[in-house]
Amino acid sequence: MAHWIWYPGDFEFYLGLRVTSARKEREKQIIPDWKLEMFNCNVMFRSTVDLSADTVVKIQSTGSVCVRIDYKWYSPIDKDNKVALPKGRHILVVNVYNPHQLPSLFIDSHEVITNSSWKVSCDNVHWKSVGCWNFTDAALPPTEYRLPTRLIFPIESESVNGGTLYDFGTETFGYLSLADAVGEGMIILYLGESRSEALDKEHCLTYEKINVNSKIPAEVTAEHSAGFRYVYCEIAECEASFESLQLYYEYLPLENKGGFCCSDTMLNKIYEISLRTLRLTTREFFIDGVKRDRWVWGGDSAQSYLLNFYSFFDNEVCKRTIRFLRGKNPVLNHINTIQSYTMFWFVGLYDYYLYTGDKNFIIEMLPDAKSFMDNFCLKRTDERGFLVTMPADWVFVDWSDITVNGFLSFTQVLFAGALKCLENLCEVAGDSVAAERYDALYTNIVQNIFKTFWNESMGCLIHTDLPKYDHCVTRYSNMFAVIFGLFDRDQQTRVIHSVLLNLNVPSITTPYMKLYELMAFGELGLHKEMHEFVQSYWGGMVNLDCTTFWETYEPEKSGDEHYAMYEGLRYGKSLCHSWGAGPLLIFGKYYLGVSPTAPAYSRFTVKPELNLIENFSGKVPVPDGEIRVAFDNKVLTVENASDGIGTFLQGDLRHEIAGQTKMVYDCKKGVIHSQDLINECSAV
Amino acid sequence: MAHWIWYPGDFEFYLGLRVTSARKEREKQIIPDWKLEMFNCNVMFRSTVDLSADTVVKIQSTGSVCVRIDYKWYSPIDKDNKVALPKGRHILVVNVYNPHQLPSLFIDSHEVITNSSWKVSCDNVHWKSVGCWNFTDAALPPTEYRLPTRLIFPIESESVNGGTLYDFGTETFGYLSLADAVGEGMIILYLGESRSEALDKEHCLTYEKINVNSKIPAEVTAEHSAGFRYVYCEIAECEASFESLQLYYEYLPLENKGGFCCSDTMLNKIYEISLRTLRLTTREFFIDGVKRDRWVWGGDSAQSYLLNFYSFFDNEVCKRTIRFLRGKNPVLNHINTIQSYTMFWFVGLYDYYLYTGDKNFIIEMLPDAKSFMDNFCLKRTDERGFLVTMPADWVFVDWSDITVNGFLSFTQVLFAGALKCLENLCEVAGDSVAAERYDALYTNIVQNIFKTFWNESMGCLIHTDLPKYDHCVTRYSNMFAVIFGLFDRDQQTRVIHSVLLNLNVPSITTPYMKLYELMAFGELGLHKEMHEFVQSYWGGMVNLDCTTFWETYEPEKSGDEHYAMYEGLRYGKSLCHSWGAGPLLIFGKYYLGVSPTAPAYSRFTVKPELNLIENFSGKVPVPDGEIRVAFDNKVLTVENASDGIGTFLQGDLRHEIAGQTKMVYDCKKGVIHSQDLINECSAV
Repeated sequence: MAHWIWYPGDFEFYLGLRVTSARKEREKQIIPDWKLEMFNCNVMFRSTVDLSADTVVKIQSTGSVCVRIDYKWYSPIDKDNKVALPKGRHILVVNVYNPHQLPSLFIDSHEVITNSSWKVSCDNVHWKSVGCWNFTDAALPPTEYRLPTRLIFPIESESVNGGTLYDFGTETFGYLSLADAVGEGMIILYLGESRSEALDKEHCLTYEKINVNSKIPAEVTAEHSAGFRYVYCEIAECEASFESLQLYYEYLPLENKGGFCCSDTMLNKIYEISLRTLRLTTREFFIDGVKRDRWVWGGDSAQSYLLNFYSFFDNEVCKRTIRFLRGKNPVLNHINTIQSYTMFWFVGLYDYYLYTGDKNFIIEMLPDAKSFMDNFCLKRTDERGFLVTMPADWVFVDWSDITVNGFLSFTQVLFAGALKCLENLCEVAGDSVAAERYDALYTNIVQNIFKTFWNESMGCLIHTDLPKYDHCVTRYSNMFAVIFGLFDRDQQTRVIHSVLLNLNVPSITTPYMKLYELMAFGELGLHKEMHEFVQSYWGGMVNLDCTTFWETYEPEKSGDEHYAMYEGLRYGKSLCHSWGAGPLLIFGKYYLGVSPTAPAYSRFTVKPELNLIENFSGKVPVPDGEIRVAFDNKVLTVENASDGIGTFLQGDLRHEIAGQTKMVYDCKKGVIHSQDLINECSAV
Repeated sequence: MAHWIWYPGDFEFYLGLRVTSARKEREKQIIPDWKLEMFNCNVMFRSTVDLSADTVVKIQSTGSVCVRIDYKWYSPIDKDNKVALPKGRHILVVNVYNPHQLPSLFIDSHEVITNSSWKVSCDNVHWKSVGCWNFTDAALPPTEYRLPTRLIFPIESESVNGGTLYDFGTETFGYLSLADAVGEGMIILYLGESRSEALDKEHCLTYEKINVNSKIPAEVTAEHSAGFRYVYCEIAECEASFESLQLYYEYLPLENKGGFCCSDTMLNKIYEISLRTLRLTTREFFIDGVKRDRWVWGGDSAQSYLLNFYSFFDNEVCKRTIRFLRGKNPVLNHINTIQSYTMFWFVGLYDYYLYTGDKNFIIEMLPDAKSFMDNFCLKRTDERGFLVTMPADWVFVDWSDITVNGFLSFTQVLFAGALKCLENLCEVAGDSVAAERYDALYTNIVQNIFKTFWNESMGCLIHTDLPKYDHCVTRYSNMFAVIFGLFDRDQQTRVIHSVLLNLNVPSITTPYMKLYELMAFGELGLHKEMHEFVQSYWGGMVNLDCTTFWETYEPEKSGDEHYAMYEGLRYGKSLCHSWGAGPLLIFGKYYLGVSPTAPAYSRFTVKPELNLIENFSGKVPVPDGEIRVAFDNKVLTVENASDGIGTFLQGDLRHEIAGQTKMVYDCKKGVIHSQDLINECSAV
């Protein structure tokens, strides 16, 4: 089947410009201070064609075209964009040039068809496989790509201060629209993720101005999309009016492939709100928040990949995000200017592979991954192999008040994790020479991490290597060292008490780092503590009637204090932030207990937590099916509706679950039954 | 004074896209098969401002803007694009984002003014001095840059085959326009650089289609510009008609600063035609030809710089061309994919410095020059230091039928020249470490050139290192070795006879390489032979009534045969080709004999050729004035209207000409008088 084809990555850069430039706060457009990549404007597509007869093909493109056959002089193109090709075997090269839009190509004739087998170059030297996706309609080139919308309405409205406050019931996203608008004037819609924000005309972070100019009632829709729950509007002094407010809700079509439901109402709410949060922030790319920044961040998105694997399992949005974040060579700065976000890029790429088993994508990205490491990261290391902080680096760890001076153990542990992930990816692609090289670097940096940061008397990694902070401990490096498996058993035990369960170590205030903390808990079997944290932290937001999870949450704050962030902006905080959706992973990986141990869940473990909730059922999507886990306080059922092989773990019990079989475990008796899944009907 | 500012190079890339994409032949747009650079779409401008009071400044930009003061949260911008700045010393950062057009910035307030002192970055890490030029009008940003036009008319028209043939008298360029066009229909104007081409509707390389749709007579102008002399039009079957044909002649304003006039009518014609040729091809950039390709080529332009220094002495068009050709990092292929064109880039940059003394530009370009050499060229060398041919390289020497297999002496001699030029530029910028490094590479490659290519029995450099061609000699490497001073006296003498004056060595058919051949003649004192070549070669084209000089000229051809080129295209040859204008340099450097020996003519030589023409007068522009040379067959006058110091050379005579003095030399008596130029009135 014919596909629109382009230079790989260019679709993402093109789309990324559109997404990134959409951040608008009141009258201000806000532009990131890192490099934004442009697509290549002059792209050469090449294929060898074998024609049984002289033929004429139609060239469709987004841009100007010129055609050469066997590298001869340019072929004539008629006014219908048709080119005559001679019978026989020929090399066909089609240039597409467009400095304004993504150059792409579509040919769908009998013997010449654009598809993933074509090669592409922007310099006539380096040829790659083309980029393509599901654009198979000649009339819909990739430049026309838009998320779909559907019309929704506020669930209630009330009169406040002479205006009307509309409530959409939950956080939402899209293009506001006035039904039956009439007259001439500017309608201002003040937006709020909170009621307070929408009513605070002076300080709400976003508003929409809609120009009405119609003698007869007509629909008028805002030019920009926005993320919000409430809309406030005063039309008293305006010469224009409208009948009702509506929203073209814009969304990425996503199937809810995961599931979790249990006897604890709060957990059910947390699951549902997490899912809404992730759904709203999963769009052209994984973005951080829907009100702001609406940008793609390396740290946020690496977490979103994981959450996605326990919910929508959408590979494409992961790939788009990974390509966009990587950008082009030369790499001039860390991803989003943040050191750790560069590291998360490598970790995220490995996670993507582990969950999806998509080797083709790893082969596509490995040259970029290696050059990113070799020509950028490794050029910024000291004699210990530590990543050095350069003047323009943003040393972001988390939104908490900690020093970022000196070499941080957090950064170096993540760097070690990145090297290990890259090593693994090289193995996947069969590049064992590079794998060995990264392994040596990994071994070296891990040694130096312990030499530099491990405090034997305190029993933990200290925060920084600066002598004046030699007793400063934070959770970050210790929890990532758990996750990356850097500690031995003894060290783990010590870190549990010296850091993880030590209330004197400052607590984490963002769901972002909270997730990693809980993952460390989960890895160490601290499920009870994990459970308490989920209930108190995410439950704390639920108790404040959130409909999506927030960028930060500090329980000690109250009322509108919760909404402020960033240099005192009264509503600066994002109340729908992708990294708020962490429970999706916690429920799937540590409650249902399903986790891949080999790519694409060809091997996985099922280690459900049976001591915290009376009963639960849920499912975890895998590339070729799903794993369903249900518990009724007596019997645990695991249905392996996939071809992978699961290992059920419970205490000392270890049982292999073959593909397409169901395991029933009687908890009281400790007895296991298995049966084929065929002819079984599953329902979660 | 306030200037529009941008990221350095971006103006050239932006303009370059416009120029490069203008090549159209009949229905085909022709797109180069090398990388076309895009401008940066997200640019940060930075300046430290010192404000005596709170102030409000207006931000003008080509793109969306956001502003930060002292790296704090984004400042509000009102609807008139005004931003409030607080009193005191602050760092002002203004982002300009535009994926469609060059992002640029203009601020012209009391204490905040955009100018060359601002810094700019596209990644927030690497800061450079901004790019700017003569855009000082707030209403005319660089995106509005267009060459000026003026209306001109055909000098005659005649009826041919039922249509009308218009003749503009000479080759010209611009937008064709129909005066008082009326009716409804498509007017087709067939264009020709030759009469034959315009009349050959089926094969002429370019035509213009102009849509007329007007009930009352109105002017309609073509959308595209074109280069041509003749226009043929048949409107018999068309429902539209027009009163007269006109042309919006488009040109770069250039002052004719050089001059040459003599007793030989043919030489005067050659000078005039050369000047027209160069004028037409000196535009936004130095382009190759006005009919085709209208592209910027590394070889052609390096020659144009030299010709420009003996005529218009326009620095800006040189700088634009050099920046555009260099492109951005990473360099992925040779300039225009041609090895030697990369080498000419270095040579051209050095020539630019030698003639202009523009050290600032060298400081701007040196990092790009070094990285081009280090990260690209030197990565493609063998153990002898020779440049290796990679699969995608176009080994273009000249349009002649010679082998390009093996290592060519031509390429390696040019590579040596490039290394020497880069070494010199490093010295200029005070980078003696790099200079030493390039010097060592230069010394090594020169040794290996002689070891590999010098044939002692033949007394010349052979063409290639392939054994089967061990007696193949071409002029190219030998003449460049003369120009770059690689030969000792003995070798020079041998090469004169074994190659330069040896009729068995194939003659050169392009003015491109002809110029270098004549420069070698000039350097070796073979003025008589040089003179004969100018008369026969360029004179040969004059005798065919050319009005501009051609891309190639082969005297043995006749009639319309002269117009064919490129895979049998009947009118494929460009009849107005920049590299046809070589006599401008020959007259200035080898007839008038003026040549810089130190940057910006602070030192120069005057070595006029007094044995070939009865009398002549002329002038050579220098950065701070001009050098006038006149000869009336008895007395030679040299007026040094500059502050540089000239050295007059004639036979064994050597005389220093101080700045702002005039030297009179009585040729018969061999007597020299000098006098101050002040109060002198000069006329050439």
